[in-house]
Amino acid sequence: MERIFSAVQAYADEASKLRRDFHKFAEDAWCEYRTTAQIAQYLRRIGVPCKLGVGNMAEQFAYNRPEKEKLEKAKKRAEEQGVPKALIEEIGDFTGVTAVIDSGKPGKTYALRFDIDALTLTESKTGSHRPWTEGFASVNDGACHACGHDGHTAIGLICARILNENKDSFCGKVKLVFQPAEEGVCGARAMMESGFFDDVDVLLSGHIGLNAKENGLLVANTGGFFATAKQKVVFKGKSAHAAAAPERGKNALLAAASAALNVYPLVQDSRGMARVNVGTLHAGTVANVIPERAEMKIEGRAMTTELCDELSDNIKRVCEAAAMMYGVQVETTVFGAAMGANGDESLEKKLCAVARKYNLAEKIKEKGVFGASEDVSWMMDAVQKRGGVACYMMWGTELAEAHHNSMFDFDEKVLPFAIKILLAAICEGI
Amino acid sequence: MERIFSAVQAYADEASKLRRDFHKFAEDAWCEYRTTAQIAQYLRRIGVPCKLGVGNMAEQFAYNRPEKEKLEKAKKRAEEQGVPKALIEEIGDFTGVTAVIDSGKPGKTYALRFDIDALTLTESKTGSHRPWTEGFASVNDGACHACGHDGHTAIGLICARILNENKDSFCGKVKLVFQPAEEGVCGARAMMESGFFDDVDVLLSGHIGLNAKENGLLVANTGGFFATAKQKVVFKGKSAHAAAAPERGKNALLAAASAALNVYPLVQDSRGMARVNVGTLHAGTVANVIPERAEMKIEGRAMTTELCDELSDNIKRVCEAAAMMYGVQVETTVFGAAMGANGDESLEKKLCAVARKYNLAEKIKEKGVFGASEDVSWMMDAVQKRGGVACYMMWGTELAEAHHNSMFDFDEKVLPFAIKILLAAICEGI
Amino acid sequence: MERIFSAVQAYADEASKLRRDFHKFAEDAWCEYRTTAQIAQYLRRIGVPCKLGVGNMAEQFAYNRPEKEKLEKAKKRAEEQGVPKALIEEIGDFTGVTAVIDSGKPGKTYALRFDIDALTLTESKTGSHRPWTEGFASVNDGACHACGHDGHTAIGLICARILNENKDSFCGKVKLVFQPAEEGVCGARAMMESGFFDDVDVLLSGHIGLNAKENGLLVANTGGFFATAKQKVVFKGKSAHAAAAPERGKNALLAAASAALNVYPLVQDSRGMARVNVGTLHAGTVANVIPERAEMKIEGRAMTTELCDELSDNIKRVCEAAAMMYGVQVETTVFGAAMGANGDESLEKKLCAVARKYNLAEKIKEKGVFGASEDVSWMMDAVQKRGGVACYMMWGTELAEAHHNSMFDFDEKVLPFAIKILLAAICEGI
Amino acid sequence: MERIFSAVQAYADEASKLRRDFHKFAEDAWCEYRTTAQIAQYLRRIGVPCKLGVGNMAEQFAYNRPEKEKLEKAKKRAEEQGVPKALIEEIGDFTGVTAVIDSGKPGKTYALRFDIDALTLTESKTGSHRPWTEGFASVNDGACHACGHDGHTAIGLICARILNENKDSFCGKVKLVFQPAEEGVCGARAMMESGFFDDVDVLLSGHIGLNAKENGLLVANTGGFFATAKQKVVFKGKSAHAAAAPERGKNALLAAASAALNVYPLVQDSRGMARVNVGTLHAGTVANVIPERAEMKIEGRAMTTELCDELSDNIKRVCEAAAMMYGVQVETTVFGAAMGANGDESLEKKLCAVARKYNLAEKIKEKGVFGASEDVSWMMDAVQKRGGVACYMMWGTELAEAHHNSMFDFDEKVLPFAIKILLAAICEGI
Repeated sequence: MERIFSAVQAYADEASKLRRDFHKFAEDAWCEYRTTAQIAQYLRRIGVPCKLGVGNMAEQFAYNRPEKEKLEKAKKRAEEQGVPKALIEEIGDFTGVTAVIDSGKPGKTYALRFDIDALTLTESKTGSHRPWTEGFASVNDGACHACGHDGHTAIGLICARILNENKDSFCGKVKLVFQPAEEGVCGARAMMESGFFDDVDVLLSGHIGLNAKENGLLVANTGGFFATAKQKVVFKGKSAHAAAAPERGKNALLAAASAALNVYPLVQDSRGMARVNVGTLHAGTVANVIPERAEMKIEGRAMTTELCDELSDNIKRVCEAAAMMYGVQVETTVFGAAMGANGDESLEKKLCAVARKYNLAEKIKEKGVFGASEDVSWMMDAVQKRGGVACYMMWGTELAEAHHNSMFDFDEKVLPFAIKILLAAICEGI
Repeated sequence: MERIFSAVQAYADEASKLRRDFHKFAEDAWCEYRTTAQIAQYLRRIGVPCKLGVGNMAEQFAYNRPEKEKLEKAKKRAEEQGVPKALIEEIGDFTGVTAVIDSGKPGKTYALRFDIDALTLTESKTGSHRPWTEGFASVNDGACHACGHDGHTAIGLICARILNENKDSFCGKVKLVFQPAEEGVCGARAMMESGFFDDVDVLLSGHIGLNAKENGLLVANTGGFFATAKQKVVFKGKSAHAAAAPERGKNALLAAASAALNVYPLVQDSRGMARVNVGTLHAGTVANVIPERAEMKIEGRAMTTELCDELSDNIKRVCEAAAMMYGVQVETTVFGAAMGANGDESLEKKLCAVARKYNLAEKIKEKGVFGASEDVSWMMDAVQKRGGVACYMMWGTELAEAHHNSMFDFDEKVLPFAIKILLAAICEGI
Repeated sequence: MERIFSAVQAYADEASKLRRDFHKFAEDAWCEYRTTAQIAQYLRRIGVPCKLGVGNMAEQFAYNRPEKEKLEKAKKRAEEQGVPKALIEEIGDFTGVTAVIDSGKPGKTYALRFDIDALTLTESKTGSHRPWTEGFASVNDGACHACGHDGHTAIGLICARILNENKDSFCGKVKLVFQPAEEGVCGARAMMESGFFDDVDVLLSGHIGLNAKENGLLVANTGGFFATAKQKVVFKGKSAHAAAAPERGKNALLAAASAALNVYPLVQDSRGMARVNVGTLHAGTVANVIPERAEMKIEGRAMTTELCDELSDNIKRVCEAAAMMYGVQVETTVFGAAMGANGDESLEKKLCAVARKYNLAEKIKEKGVFGASEDVSWMMDAVQKRGGVACYMMWGTELAEAHHNSMFDFDEKVLPFAIKILLAAICEGI
Repeated sequence: MERIFSAVQAYADEASKLRRDFHKFAEDAWCEYRTTAQIAQYLRRIGVPCKLGVGNMAEQFAYNRPEKEKLEKAKKRAEEQGVPKALIEEIGDFTGVTAVIDSGKPGKTYALRFDIDALTLTESKTGSHRPWTEGFASVNDGACHACGHDGHTAIGLICARILNENKDSFCGKVKLVFQPAEEGVCGARAMMESGFFDDVDVLLSGHIGLNAKENGLLVANTGGFFATAKQKVVFKGKSAHAAAAPERGKNALLAAASAALNVYPLVQDSRGMARVNVGTLHAGTVANVIPERAEMKIEGRAMTTELCDELSDNIKRVCEAAAMMYGVQVETTVFGAAMGANGDESLEKKLCAVARKYNLAEKIKEKGVFGASEDVSWMMDAVQKRGGVACYMMWGTELAEAHHNSMFDFDEKVLPFAIKILLAAICEGI
């Protein structure tokens, strides 16, 4: 194990360098062309074969895919930023990478999952913001790694490198997943439904920061993921002159407003905490016309997938009733979803034991609460359903600003910290 | 005609006496037992045969009938106030009186319609209120002639008396209708549907006061009746403990509240003025239980019967949608309705001519606007549909207080004023 | 201790008899005149002095007091049911009893709290309902012991009797509180504010049934009480004819409906589970008048008193805004309130130890969740604030039907079960 | 007069040519740079001095001014489309033209008002649409003369030409107003408040088409203008993570939705027809964040300016109350307004007399109903207040499609038709 830890130390600077590169060329959900290319080129350079493109995905479960035009722009920008055309073609319409490192010995099948997308946010460019002062702030307007996925990706690549260089140190095989489109909980399900996790015994994933805001703190098992479903609701009515012929209109705006007000009572449930949010409502074009179109984005969350499904059905029913109220048409589409999830206590205990054995963490919390949603839940569920185990960790790091803030930054000491824990777990055969 | 006018003058005191008797024993809609009995006894005493009971009514069109218990109480009170038991049995479950006075000569068939019910209101009993100071304030709590129907009834009886004593003064026959339950527009349709108006050539009706607030003012032809339909809407959900199991409840209160807010946009219509009112909403019993029942009374009004029907359908749809929104059941029942109506200009001109010829009015307005609803509209429509003509007048009188106020009172000079106009019209054969 | 347990066994039938007597003469909140009289007469008969009337209460904190007329009726009924007039006068306007049993030895001050009121519910009178078949169903229509407070009262009296007969078996003193008006969380605060708990070291209270639905199950420490505040909200607008002059009205119904729909979003809070319920909404009198008055009962609940206060303020603000929206007046009054509460773990452990030592329970759960509200929380808080400890237990019993159901009944074996636990705890000096 | 009519006939083709030029280079409200320049160049070419720029306007009453950037783009486009830079500088920030033609003889002061702006609409470019087939469809995307103001402008210029060439044919003087930004009722008030109408005795204006859809039909006096005020309402709350910290958000979207539903009951008024429309509601950016900003456009209309002011105040109050409900800030800004207006019957009669005398119209209707709003009402009111008279005509023309439709077109015969009526009226000295 000492060899492993030394390697981690040796590659710590490379981890930072990788992270900063991803940070500088941040790409948002489904548009991670340069990021995907860099991952693939790195893996191939170090001798790890990897798979790109639609083969990693069950397309029909890929939520909230961008318009063709947006994809083409993303490809073009990646090309301008140095990605060979052939690689872009290999990626095709689906970003993300999978790879397998086989020790050649019998043993468990591990999966390590890393999310790679940035937020649709423009990064701060002010004196006090380190990515800016040190020259790795995002050059792509409207895309910013303000959640730390740049770090996750770097962690994944260094893990791959060390595992590949130390096949004698572990048994079984390790599958690596670099998942696009985690923001909006859009990408995981499609990867899960592709069957990639069907032979996985142990799934390890995690996040830097969040509720682990001190360097050296390990939260071994994060639960309290909200299951979530996000619906786009489109009301279609009929326009008419608001003064001269109001009776000829069918008011989509009022249908939407009424739906918005009436979904909130759904949240009260003694079976578990739930959430409803009407995040957007856009209706109408001018003051003097009965508005004929309204679009809303509504998300429901609940502590279990079943409760979340029930909540989503209820939200849909409220929207349909609101449409009926105003004699308009309505269509609802799910554009993002995640399951509720809980890690396995048996795996949690093993993770803690490994961390203690090698003194990897300054502080260990066995359990943490997420309080929001993560689509790794689809993968955890798939692994657990086939009898495997899964844990989602939080890796402690001090933050310059909160997640999703345009001045977000983290202490890069977390990179070797997380890598050590993941590698020690695999090498210990947990 | 002079003989007729002298008779009116001679009976002016009797008119007041009758009015004050009806006023003192005010009875509200469908409960006018003593009133009906007094009308019948008076007509029979003066030799005019009349018809009582269900025979005057097409039962299925009688709106908003009271519970059996309420009817029985009304009968009992009438008995205690001196009505012979046999007469109450003759009335049975349906108050109201019809009578026909035949001149024996060929001619037109006239109908005079008078409404006889009081409001569900408790009359003021204070020093300045004349019915109280002069001893004819209502002795029946919760029933008060604050709209002048006591006067209408008295006008009808004196008309009957004089016509019956002067059959040589007119041709054809005169049908008299003393209609119950005008308040809430509940009684007229049932009387109309009985066929009583099927042979009527000329329908005359009217109201004291309203927009005619000066003594001696005749408004010959009142239009601008709103067609109306009043719906009772009952939502039935499911109760549950509001803290321990809110998800088990189906919230009828919120369905009703949502319906209430969403019916108002229906009123905007370039085809004609309309009105919506949610007059009542009653839901729930205690603070800590999801309310399982809600009841609303909603009325819609519009300038034509067609627009009113459309509006009522729309109100119903909103209520059904609100029920769907909260997963509750809903039932809607029409409990009162009136048509839009316009009097005939030809008849209006004749009425004005008669009034001028005999100098009956100090001031004549050809047309007036009602601005509310009156179920005489059913009768006007039936007569007009068969080719007859109709006018609804306003007979001017100074008012102590506005209609429907518990201190309402009028100048009884209006009684002979109205009687003269009605009798002159018939004797002139208009 | 054996002497104590034998006494409990010996008085088990008396406990049932007492319980059935209270059950038969069920009285609802603030109207427990016969119940109060029976408690007082029993205590005095066995030689325990007790205190009645307003002296037990800080009047200004007595929530939701009935109209004078209702109190007078309750007094009259109690008199008819055998209570001496003098005793009713002693009770005056405030039901409830307090008593102190002093061992004469130094030691802790214990408080035992029992609630005595029935629900405003009419008891089932059908063949299968034991209180009915065995002749102790409530003779008072609209009042029914469907929550088990009859049992609580009986437990309290037998505790008093045995403690008084065995002063040598315990040290310190025991204060007994028979609290009126627990339903609606109305009575406890007034008793607490009177200062009665200011010297209490250990408060013990509890409930039969709830989440302890097996005979012999002890839940030692129930937490998860929602803090709650119940507000009556009265909107006062202005009536007007809905067709003829709608603009003159100020619509109280719509203000209430709008408030009702807009208080539900308040419930979402990451700091703890919360609840909102608009339990009642009553507005308007007839269909054709703009409704001038609306009354709502709204309750908010939250996991802590602070969050509940914040929620109540927010509910009030929504109501005031709704009033402003419709140009109407609004008044809000709190008519019931309870605090959030948690029992003390140290006391919980001692209770469990005693129960195990004497083998008093077939099954012990250390902690339970209430999931609703109980105004004993005011007393728990007062005791804890001065440094004392408190626990609220659940005493297991099979139920014929759920609490608050008109066919509720319980297995009376729970009476000696609860009494033994309470007495053992006191005699052990926990 | 024959000379005048011959001149009209002679310039009919020029009228069409002018109209088509304006049509092709359509410019929307406040951006009419090329249009303004063409008008000015035409007037100056024929020897009529005219005034451009801010001097025509009382700036503070100019509603809904575009951002500086939009103005600059409009100027630039005009320059690209051939307008000399100097002329654009003369126009400055305010489009629109005024001119005076003085006969040199004593007499009345007439004002002729023409609106010059296009709609923000992209014109149809399909085979059947004449402006497209004949090559004068708008080359400016997002601007389209679909209301006929291109025709109005052409009418104005030919009137100016003929009047200027025939000063001996009339007395007094004629003031011409080419008003920008009529759509949205934004431009008229600023021109009126500049004082231009302070000496006007007779104001003549009108519209082609509308309710005059037959060639040769003159509606002499259009009334039934709704007074209107259009408000932009901006709610500002606070964003927060919808699952992790909903209580930290202040929900602007729900405030807006609540306001939207609660403004509709305001429309019921027995004093006159009114209208409310929430034309737009835009709130929020993503599904999982409490929306912090919402913007609505609401218009109220009523039959008189007083009722409209009252309605606007009420709308504002509802919005402020909705803001209070959700603890958010709100700002309301009027961005368009027009008065109620009625033409003068005396002028109407004279117009009809002139049209009959010279047989100018195939059909004459004395009065018409507008049923919507027009900001010429500000000018009519100003003229009437100082004792002058005003009429707004409708000039009949067959339409290819309804006003505001992207395939709108009209029969250009209406141009000489309208010009003749205007000139005849002035030359007759009405």
